[in-house]
Amino acid sequence: MTYRAPLKSLALALKTAGHPALIGQAFTELDEDTVTAVLEAAGAFCESELAPLNRAGDQVGATYANGKVTAAPGFAAAYKAFAEQGWNSLSADPEFGGQGLTKAMELAVFEMTHAANMAFGLCPMLTQGAIEALTLHGTERQKRLVLPKLVSGEWTGTMNLTEPQAGSDLAAVTTRAEPDGQGGYKLYGQKIFITWGDHDATDNICHLVLARLPDAPPGVKGISLFLATKRLVDDNGALGAPNDLRPGSIEHKLGIHGSPTCVMLFEGAQAELVGEVNNGIAHMFVMMNAARLQVGVQGVAIAERAYQQALAFSQERTQGRGAWGPGIFGHPDVRRMLTLMKAKIEAARAICITTGVLADLGRLSEDPAERAIAKARQELLTPIAKAWSTDIGVEVASLGVQVHGGMGFIEETGAAQHYRDARIAPIYEGTNGIQAIDLAGRKLSMQDGGVMDALCAEMSESVADLKAQPGLEAVGERLAAGVAALERATDWMLSHKGPEALSGATAYLKLAGDVIGGWMLGRQALAVAGETDDWSQSRAALARVFASQVLTGAEGLAQSVMEGGKDLEALSAETLAS
Amino acid sequence: MTYRAPLKSLALALKTAGHPALIGQAFTELDEDTVTAVLEAAGAFCESELAPLNRAGDQVGATYANGKVTAAPGFAAAYKAFAEQGWNSLSADPEFGGQGLTKAMELAVFEMTHAANMAFGLCPMLTQGAIEALTLHGTERQKRLVLPKLVSGEWTGTMNLTEPQAGSDLAAVTTRAEPDGQGGYKLYGQKIFITWGDHDATDNICHLVLARLPDAPPGVKGISLFLATKRLVDDNGALGAPNDLRPGSIEHKLGIHGSPTCVMLFEGAQAELVGEVNNGIAHMFVMMNAARLQVGVQGVAIAERAYQQALAFSQERTQGRGAWGPGIFGHPDVRRMLTLMKAKIEAARAICITTGVLADLGRLSEDPAERAIAKARQELLTPIAKAWSTDIGVEVASLGVQVHGGMGFIEETGAAQHYRDARIAPIYEGTNGIQAIDLAGRKLSMQDGGVMDALCAEMSESVADLKAQPGLEAVGERLAAGVAALERATDWMLSHKGPEALSGATAYLKLAGDVIGGWMLGRQALAVAGETDDWSQSRAALARVFASQVLTGAEGLAQSVMEGGKDLEALSAETLAS
Repeated sequence: MTYRAPLKSLALALKTAGHPALIGQAFTELDEDTVTAVLEAAGAFCESELAPLNRAGDQVGATYANGKVTAAPGFAAAYKAFAEQGWNSLSADPEFGGQGLTKAMELAVFEMTHAANMAFGLCPMLTQGAIEALTLHGTERQKRLVLPKLVSGEWTGTMNLTEPQAGSDLAAVTTRAEPDGQGGYKLYGQKIFITWGDHDATDNICHLVLARLPDAPPGVKGISLFLATKRLVDDNGALGAPNDLRPGSIEHKLGIHGSPTCVMLFEGAQAELVGEVNNGIAHMFVMMNAARLQVGVQGVAIAERAYQQALAFSQERTQGRGAWGPGIFGHPDVRRMLTLMKAKIEAARAICITTGVLADLGRLSEDPAERAIAKARQELLTPIAKAWSTDIGVEVASLGVQVHGGMGFIEETGAAQHYRDARIAPIYEGTNGIQAIDLAGRKLSMQDGGVMDALCAEMSESVADLKAQPGLEAVGERLAAGVAALERATDWMLSHKGPEALSGATAYLKLAGDVIGGWMLGRQALAVAGETDDWSQSRAALARVFASQVLTGAEGLAQSVMEGGKDLEALSAETLAS
Repeated sequence: MTYRAPLKSLALALKTAGHPALIGQAFTELDEDTVTAVLEAAGAFCESELAPLNRAGDQVGATYANGKVTAAPGFAAAYKAFAEQGWNSLSADPEFGGQGLTKAMELAVFEMTHAANMAFGLCPMLTQGAIEALTLHGTERQKRLVLPKLVSGEWTGTMNLTEPQAGSDLAAVTTRAEPDGQGGYKLYGQKIFITWGDHDATDNICHLVLARLPDAPPGVKGISLFLATKRLVDDNGALGAPNDLRPGSIEHKLGIHGSPTCVMLFEGAQAELVGEVNNGIAHMFVMMNAARLQVGVQGVAIAERAYQQALAFSQERTQGRGAWGPGIFGHPDVRRMLTLMKAKIEAARAICITTGVLADLGRLSEDPAERAIAKARQELLTPIAKAWSTDIGVEVASLGVQVHGGMGFIEETGAAQHYRDARIAPIYEGTNGIQAIDLAGRKLSMQDGGVMDALCAEMSESVADLKAQPGLEAVGERLAAGVAALERATDWMLSHKGPEALSGATAYLKLAGDVIGGWMLGRQALAVAGETDDWSQSRAALARVFASQVLTGAEGLAQSVMEGGKDLEALSAETLAS
């Protein structure tokens, strides 16, 4: 088996994030046994159906010929099974055929999906975004004819944002939407980097497209959101003629070869408006926050996959005599790599799952005050979940190669695929630099810094608990130092504006992730401190490793944050080029 | 132009490393103008002849068919030109046709070679090792017939160490050498990961092979070094029949596709002993120290290449409105990435070039005391030069992808190749974990820690100079804190043994590299502090950036070092696997 679902870790992450209380309050038809059963079944499907396809997905990949994309070997059949078993619709509204489960559970299932096969997972992940968009902003017709097909997985969805000149800067979008005189629109333009933009796994594909209406104002205030389907849909939901849109080519990428990344050509494609005219960016942003959290989960997922492979290799491979037993696993430096990988994965998983639980609470808590608090903290944590976790995905995948030694560089081994696949996650759905700016700007300034202050206060409360728990005293001390550094850096950020603050944003995000991750590992260790089994006991050791290897860097990071940008500004392109 | 030789940076690195004094003392026929002219000519060759081949080397790569390897498109012709122009023999002994220049200059030329085309550079780099082995340990026949051909580049050399079961652990080598009854030997066995093990760029290839004689003691004390040529060489140096050795296949690798990595099959290959019976590992280690420094230079090189591409892209690509001018170069977070890349490259370059100057001084200084001091410091710095620089190679290549955004993930852009190529350097010639163990063990314990103590004392002397120099005060303060942290970690390392010390070895190496790199950037800034041109002035800004973004982490790293390994040891494979 190339992948084993980390069910115990996911269960602990859900528990510590408050998932039991959430379902007790807002998902009363759910119970813990059902949660466990759902995750077990999803894990089994990912292990047996998706993980085995991951290699062919990389080696053969999706292919483009004669204006059509063919999914990688086995992907189309696996997708049908995925949809038929209901994995596509866990959190979707039952009104449209969804199962109405928690976002947090959906994230856990997606983590396993991405770990088993990241290129595959992107297809339902993008569909998820389309489901959210139509649930929130769809017309009655869209909700009746299109949304249920997306929820069931019979059709898939895409996000058409990027154009050659408009990547991080969506204000530069130029795709045109022209009224067709019958209440609809025709789309003209070229989109790039469209994930799963075309494939042969379903009969239809629903493209959500950012475009400009005639006379729309310039910039982001003039962009609207449209729906164009690969095949037209009549008023009874029957499929009609092909629409005037097509994939122009697929990209030859560093990784995720099983995920077709399309150039999409809209050549007068019939389209419908979604939501309000000129408010497309705002509608898209709602989805993007969910997608950003999903990408963070991808970081956890690819790290977990790389880690499992490295751990297995370390026990099989013998080189020299390890101080701590057989295999290279017995060498302290190899053990250090594996343990650090594991600790970082658990911290990132905790951050992502917690953000998912907050998303549920922010939607569904009965208490308006709790909803507001949860929503604000979810917003604060989203850029951290995305950027910090995806950086860890790259770092852990790279360590996975390193554990393999020379074999890691040989493609046949498989470690290299994870290193290649992982590299996209810090880039898409808003680069990690943009996440850092989002955190340091919009998110930090919410309630004048109050959201971060409240989180720091809560972390400080845990310090006393940790210090009082035998074996976790050092974690408490290092967390205290970490929180103090984060508070100082936060104050500095709030009192500096523009380039000064932007220059320190990435270090600030890393600092925040390190401290929050260390806190969450500490909380997990506290949560199982009463258990006597080896696994529960090992959570304290993981928290200590994270504290000694990661939290210890907090003070240095705070200094980096507070340096500002004067030297960066002063270094010119000319001096940097020579 | 895809690569520009960083001549100013190399010149400053050589100057600050004491190269002028070295040539004044031990290379009196050389002068500064000649040094400059050599580097300029090498740079021009790398820019115009090697860099343009780098892409095809990746896309087409070396190929294997019918028992033979064909070099990547253009590589064979470029190799001939490289050899004819003398770039293969810069530091080789003039007695054998070499140019007798400094090792430091050779490293500078190799940096440019690797940056222009890392896969290509491996061929002369491996030949270098064979030249060293035969210069030090070759028989009269080998020095007469083989060595001059390697020096001239008419033939190339390889290192045959690794076997499937013997990677980091050479004690496990099983290739057999049987006396042929006529003073020679026949080799039987399989070697893997043999860089440039076969190709069509030269008429002959000289394989240096580790093998066991019958009745040799087990382990590393029973391994001898042999020379086997692809074609037999008669006593007049004429090429004879093919030898009984051949490439069995080449590996499909993550990167450096232009460098054929061969399985080599020795099927009774005629061979000669090199050096003493059963002392092959020691002979090989002499070469490996040189090769390790060379690999460190590869880290600098691939980082420089990735950096140049990212910097150029950042000026062309526009997204949004940068606070600091046009292009994404005007965005503070992009500027931060580029500036940090540059600062780390310069620090790694300084460490590698300094180690090269020390190698020269250790060989050639007239003062025996200076020779001993230089040699000891060279040995101390070698694992740092290798591991720290190659980790930076990977980190900078990854940042290079990030600066490109989505385009970085598309293979066509070229940034991804650097990310793939860079990944091998932390692995080969002794993994970076092995470098850390070498530093924390053998190297640190030289003179009971005295070599590192002396270096720390010298760094502390620079602190006062930095604090007295306007604009470098903060560098001085941060360096002082860094040296203090390094001294504390050093004391801890020296007072701990076995797994405890091994557990902190990697963090210790990073700490040492960070502090020494920061010191060297500070020294460079001091060296040009009197100059008023923009470039010289920018060195102070780079030193400040490194100090604020890297040196600030020293205290945290020292804490990580001093944590020891108890938690690592306690975490079992079972708990880590679930």
